[in-house]
Amino acid sequence: MTDPLDLDEFRRNGHALIDWIAEYLGGLEDRPVIEPVAPGEVRAKLPAKPPMTGEPFSAMLADLDDVVVPGLTHWQHPHWFSFFPAMSSPPAILGELAAAGLGVQGMLWSTSPAATEIESHVLDWLVDLMGVPQSWKTTGPGGGVLQMSASDSTHTALVVAREVCRQRTGAPAESMVAYTSSQAHSSVEKGGNVAGYGHVRLLEVDDHFAVAPATLRDAIADDLAVGLTPAFVCAAVGTTGTTAVDPVRAIGEIAREHHLWLHIDAAYAGSAMICEEFRDHQDGLELADSYTFNAHKWLATNFDCSIFWVADRRPLIDTLSIVPPYLRNAASDAGEVIDYRDWHVPLGRRFRALKLWWVLRSFGVEGLQAMIRRHIAAAQRLDAWLRTDDRFEVIAPTPFGLVSFLHVDGDEATDALVARLNDAGFAINGSVANGRHFIRVSIGSTWTEDRHVDALRSAIDRLG
Amino acid sequence: MTDPLDLDEFRRNGHALIDWIAEYLGGLEDRPVIEPVAPGEVRAKLPAKPPMTGEPFSAMLADLDDVVVPGLTHWQHPHWFSFFPAMSSPPAILGELAAAGLGVQGMLWSTSPAATEIESHVLDWLVDLMGVPQSWKTTGPGGGVLQMSASDSTHTALVVAREVCRQRTGAPAESMVAYTSSQAHSSVEKGGNVAGYGHVRLLEVDDHFAVAPATLRDAIADDLAVGLTPAFVCAAVGTTGTTAVDPVRAIGEIAREHHLWLHIDAAYAGSAMICEEFRDHQDGLELADSYTFNAHKWLATNFDCSIFWVADRRPLIDTLSIVPPYLRNAASDAGEVIDYRDWHVPLGRRFRALKLWWVLRSFGVEGLQAMIRRHIAAAQRLDAWLRTDDRFEVIAPTPFGLVSFLHVDGDEATDALVARLNDAGFAINGSVANGRHFIRVSIGSTWTEDRHVDALRSAIDRLG
Repeated sequence: MTDPLDLDEFRRNGHALIDWIAEYLGGLEDRPVIEPVAPGEVRAKLPAKPPMTGEPFSAMLADLDDVVVPGLTHWQHPHWFSFFPAMSSPPAILGELAAAGLGVQGMLWSTSPAATEIESHVLDWLVDLMGVPQSWKTTGPGGGVLQMSASDSTHTALVVAREVCRQRTGAPAESMVAYTSSQAHSSVEKGGNVAGYGHVRLLEVDDHFAVAPATLRDAIADDLAVGLTPAFVCAAVGTTGTTAVDPVRAIGEIAREHHLWLHIDAAYAGSAMICEEFRDHQDGLELADSYTFNAHKWLATNFDCSIFWVADRRPLIDTLSIVPPYLRNAASDAGEVIDYRDWHVPLGRRFRALKLWWVLRSFGVEGLQAMIRRHIAAAQRLDAWLRTDDRFEVIAPTPFGLVSFLHVDGDEATDALVARLNDAGFAINGSVANGRHFIRVSIGSTWTEDRHVDALRSAIDRLG
Repeated sequence: MTDPLDLDEFRRNGHALIDWIAEYLGGLEDRPVIEPVAPGEVRAKLPAKPPMTGEPFSAMLADLDDVVVPGLTHWQHPHWFSFFPAMSSPPAILGELAAAGLGVQGMLWSTSPAATEIESHVLDWLVDLMGVPQSWKTTGPGGGVLQMSASDSTHTALVVAREVCRQRTGAPAESMVAYTSSQAHSSVEKGGNVAGYGHVRLLEVDDHFAVAPATLRDAIADDLAVGLTPAFVCAAVGTTGTTAVDPVRAIGEIAREHHLWLHIDAAYAGSAMICEEFRDHQDGLELADSYTFNAHKWLATNFDCSIFWVADRRPLIDTLSIVPPYLRNAASDAGEVIDYRDWHVPLGRRFRALKLWWVLRSFGVEGLQAMIRRHIAAAQRLDAWLRTDDRFEVIAPTPFGLVSFLHVDGDEATDALVARLNDAGFAINGSVANGRHFIRVSIGSTWTEDRHVDALRSAIDRLG
């Protein structure tokens, strides 16, 4: 008979699971990156009812091999070049384990001070590491908080912007307008809908897939002319489509002129800012009201770990705190303690800062910088090689780890190449920009080495 | 030199961390449940900058003891009687570890079919286990999804209700009204504000701290009379204050009559429904549009693991999907596959179902039922004892694991008892209901045994 609360069993089971994970990660290269599985196939392996009495842990481990793994798409596979990376790493996995083991709730400073203070401290470290404005530190007027995803961060920014606009103009949400690039992540449009904006404008982009300032200016003028209320603009530092970079400073100046909230979505590319040479891409950040990037994309930390910074935390807390003013905490207002429940929609929160803290310490700053530089160098080598081959056209700059190209014979040839590369064991997305199909090669998985990128290049050469 | 990607190091470090967690959990009883720590004390132990080169894992482990643990409030301590429980258990901790080790993203069915199918299957198991309507299964018109917290679930319900109401009435969100009990969780008011409702009414409660149907009916009539648009009502099965139970059927009938969305917040008490004898408390669920409860409160699963069910998934997906109708997926519409990104605000998602699956299998249904019954029996014993003592007044029924009582000498005596109990090593909250201070004893921590409740009773006797 098994006892799920027996701590000696926990030790044995835990050691076995750690070993299983090491073997899984070390053996990924020998598996297909996308397991072939039909709808319903996984469920068909599961019993119709849960067991009445407890099963031994060996049954869970066996089902990892028999049910789970054959039903996965392996995001940690070295041949993962799809979407963006969802990086993980051994220190991050162990940080997640430690947080689960401690089982504390950091909703208030007082419900586990270490959870709040380590989060504030590590996000303040990142302010220095990434060269974002010093005023965003929790020791200044702004501050950082961990959210589940960039979608949550952007939705939060949209809600705060809506309330700031409402107070300034008295306009209803139905007449408010949010602007972003047609190449931006879908979370901006979704967040605008969820927050009740009447209008979300997806602006046309230029030849480099970035928003031209004049396009934003014209859109604002058009909306003002018909009596709408421009409230929010999201500039992308690295769009989802092609990692295009919107001109932050020029957009920020327009936002200031028209009292729009400026949110920066650097969900993917933000991690690169730990290397000084890439920071030109975010020039103008001092004009931003909020900023998000996902350590769970490209900073070796497993999902969920999205950083959300605000330049001024007062409107954020005013919008999300449901404590009436007369009950407000003097210590919180003075910045002496932070109650993170007032910084996002959910109340409860895991101790997510632990894994980010461990990743920064385990790799060290130089280790993380070397990782980012290695990915970008590999992407730029692939970009350079593609430009030497007449069969291919690189359709966008390669400022980070994503290469965007197509087959010059047209959409059908491009789609066929995507299919052949997937058949050959590489996870790769096809997409569409300005009406043309193209191929996204996203380099940044934890276990992807130069030899895996070389193998992909050979496959493109052979199959293209 | 340490290599954070070395898998042999990961094994050694992982085994050491598992052992550390076993010792932490096994040794909690010897620590204060609330560590004495002043604002800033944790941060003062941290270096101003992250290290430039990697630190060995032994440094992280040492800091767990030196920095983290002395700065925590130990939610897993057997003397935890505060707020509600945030249960964890060895199988849940290992499920979280496995999910982190796999590192997959289940945003779409196709990005890891097993993550979606196991989630749907386990939530369908719970439909049977908890006696909620069969139509809420993913194999029917409704369906369940894991969210981060009940706050997220309730916010999602408010957003969908807003869009349903807008389509029916054309009213702007600013004129819409959401109703709930004055004793309901703050997430209803917060979610209403975030979703842009013009009005959130916190209804007065009866002597048992529940909403009387007539109170809701009158409030709706008043709002209609001034031209507002009632849109949403949340009935609590177990309020945060005293675990009062709103009359679901009567509220549901009023909701149907006035086309309000009926959301059930059973965040804490929902877990008790795995025992048939407590289901009277949720009679009338077939009138509900959505329901949430937190396995991370009282079902031995670590945060985050909030279940959100809808009776009909179409308005949910219509509201949250940003894929235009002409691109909709025939397989999704047919119920063949589910893309959970369209069921909540965030896009990305961890494989949270894994830990819930492991908890159900490791305890077995009977093991979890026994745990719930043990907690409720302990609460009812404490309730019965308090009622025999003239110094105390039990102010509310004890249908679940929470006992609500006060000192008959008044607020000062009640507050003093809370302070003395905390000084004596028990984590206990004071609160306020109908203007009177009272004491909340929440029994449900994983490691709390009858002897710990007996120790608390002795302390109440001695210090009261």
